[in-house]
Amino acid sequence: MIIDCHGHYTTAPAALQAYRQSQIDGLKDPSHVAHPADLSVISDDQIRESVEGAQLKFQRERGTDLTIFSPRASAMGPHVGNETTSLNWSRACNDMIHRVCTLYPENFVGVCQLPQSPGVAPENSAAELERCVNELGFIGCNLNPDPSGGHWTSPPLTDRHWYKFYEKMVELDVPAMVHVSGSCHPAFHTTGAYYLNADTTAFMQFLLSDLFKDFPTLRVIIPHGGGAVPFHWGRFRGLAQDMKRPPLEELLLNNVFFDTCVYHLPGIELLLKVIPADNVLFGSEMVGAVRGIDPRTGHHYDDTKRYLDALPLSEADRHKIFHGNALKVYPRLAGRVAG
Amino acid sequence: MIIDCHGHYTTAPAALQAYRQSQIDGLKDPSHVAHPADLSVISDDQIRESVEGAQLKFQRERGTDLTIFSPRASAMGPHVGNETTSLNWSRACNDMIHRVCTLYPENFVGVCQLPQSPGVAPENSAAELERCVNELGFIGCNLNPDPSGGHWTSPPLTDRHWYKFYEKMVELDVPAMVHVSGSCHPAFHTTGAYYLNADTTAFMQFLLSDLFKDFPTLRVIIPHGGGAVPFHWGRFRGLAQDMKRPPLEELLLNNVFFDTCVYHLPGIELLLKVIPADNVLFGSEMVGAVRGIDPRTGHHYDDTKRYLDALPLSEADRHKIFHGNALKVYPRLAGRVAG
Repeated sequence: MIIDCHGHYTTAPAALQAYRQSQIDGLKDPSHVAHPADLSVISDDQIRESVEGAQLKFQRERGTDLTIFSPRASAMGPHVGNETTSLNWSRACNDMIHRVCTLYPENFVGVCQLPQSPGVAPENSAAELERCVNELGFIGCNLNPDPSGGHWTSPPLTDRHWYKFYEKMVELDVPAMVHVSGSCHPAFHTTGAYYLNADTTAFMQFLLSDLFKDFPTLRVIIPHGGGAVPFHWGRFRGLAQDMKRPPLEELLLNNVFFDTCVYHLPGIELLLKVIPADNVLFGSEMVGAVRGIDPRTGHHYDDTKRYLDALPLSEADRHKIFHGNALKVYPRLAGRVAG
Repeated sequence: MIIDCHGHYTTAPAALQAYRQSQIDGLKDPSHVAHPADLSVISDDQIRESVEGAQLKFQRERGTDLTIFSPRASAMGPHVGNETTSLNWSRACNDMIHRVCTLYPENFVGVCQLPQSPGVAPENSAAELERCVNELGFIGCNLNPDPSGGHWTSPPLTDRHWYKFYEKMVELDVPAMVHVSGSCHPAFHTTGAYYLNADTTAFMQFLLSDLFKDFPTLRVIIPHGGGAVPFHWGRFRGLAQDMKRPPLEELLLNNVFFDTCVYHLPGIELLLKVIPADNVLFGSEMVGAVRGIDPRTGHHYDDTKRYLDALPLSEADRHKIFHGNALKVYPRLAGRVAG
């Protein structure tokens, strides 16, 4: 069974975005009262339609089985409104993921959006995480290191600011994918700069800290192949060494994992050359940042399975990347999937 | 002749930093008057000593010849004080580079720091660029896309905000290396995140714009191997395609160049696999961000020539990367170096 650790519900029915728009419009109205979404307006058939021609079609065509599925990352927008805005929106998005997972339990398993809000304590997201894991059967979360949308107003991920939330993750035994949302900063294009920068930034924060001494079982996935990290693996090894930090393997690699959302063969080849197979999880971000077909290959840029298939990996490594590592990083998958 | 396009004067005599400290201390004093540096306190012997055991030693050991040399990037600190602070500091740093280049005309050629300051028009740096090029024989500049030191308060590099400065670059026929300074933002480690993020950010800004239609002869070098760009070349190709932009070769590659400051063989191998040899300039950033010896190879991480030497490049490509491209990108080198 091939598990794709990185999929977002980018094709949700328009009514979900209409609710979001009503939230945003409401914020301009002084008499605005935040109200939860009524998702009963969205039928199961609309949900089926939203994935049948997209994620499910690609799963079938590409030969993948189960997608670890979360709300659309660029639309999380935690900087919009306040904590209540974020909570209502996150619940709506997570409930939609739950409906997809309920309709297609063989194809999707949920990871939740967190109701983060700039300046609000991360542990305020613990209740929604708990709801998603305990009531909806989700297996992880997307943790946004920068709820401000590009201004990076939160302390580094290694600051004690985040510790109470990490305690909840450890208690529930769920990992987080470190994933920013859409950029509202004019310098940073969302999918072409901000996402990759956030990945690199988070990794370097981890490198500088003893976070994983404090939380030896905390697990994080850095998406988009780790941003710039594998390409600059020598730089990071050298920086750690110059700063008298332990070797990266010892410092980080029990806790930090990378997906394979790198959209060309030479990139995936490099990733697997420098990062141990134990730390790489198959992911495609499908349907996501890049939707076109590469004229050089005749296949979708984000069909990352093809790149992996083209590499001379051992059967053991292949099994880890496509399956085993996901079970290790997301232990709650075990109930859903044969080992 | 092997030309290293990326070296900073990280080993300057202590008196230079003492002047900088006096500037910073002065800013706290309400009666502070900005005063230029008196660099006559630094002797030629002190300058010789500062490079003999460092940059010159490494040139000899590694078999490189000429370093395109600029002030220490992390110390540019354009966010400190105001425009006058930056002008005095930049002139002092550039004058020191000039002294190094005058003492060792075979080994160093100058690239200048610009007296940028947050909120100040980039064209205010044109006079210092002109002085360095016309009076001191410099061949380029380091252009900082974020003089705020991590807050990215300037418009994107493709905004008309920068155009008058680009006009001066074009008039003088000098390129810019896009290089931020030290981070004063707690999220971003200077050499482990901020530098790489800036490289990726700048590239994506170029991808989105028609800057090089407006300035067909403008040339920029993106350092540190282009940040995350080559590793994600498929992503960038796909993003451009989805946005109906021209292919990257046509859109950017007459104007955008990458150095080889990537500190391990697999990274350099990837760089040369995806970026045409016409767009890659040998660089080491020596003595710079990573100073240690890689225990896996027994050589300095930043000895990037060794990685290139290990690749099966054609003689023609090797000549371009080590020599020819530098002459193309920095035409003012021609007076200094045989073609």
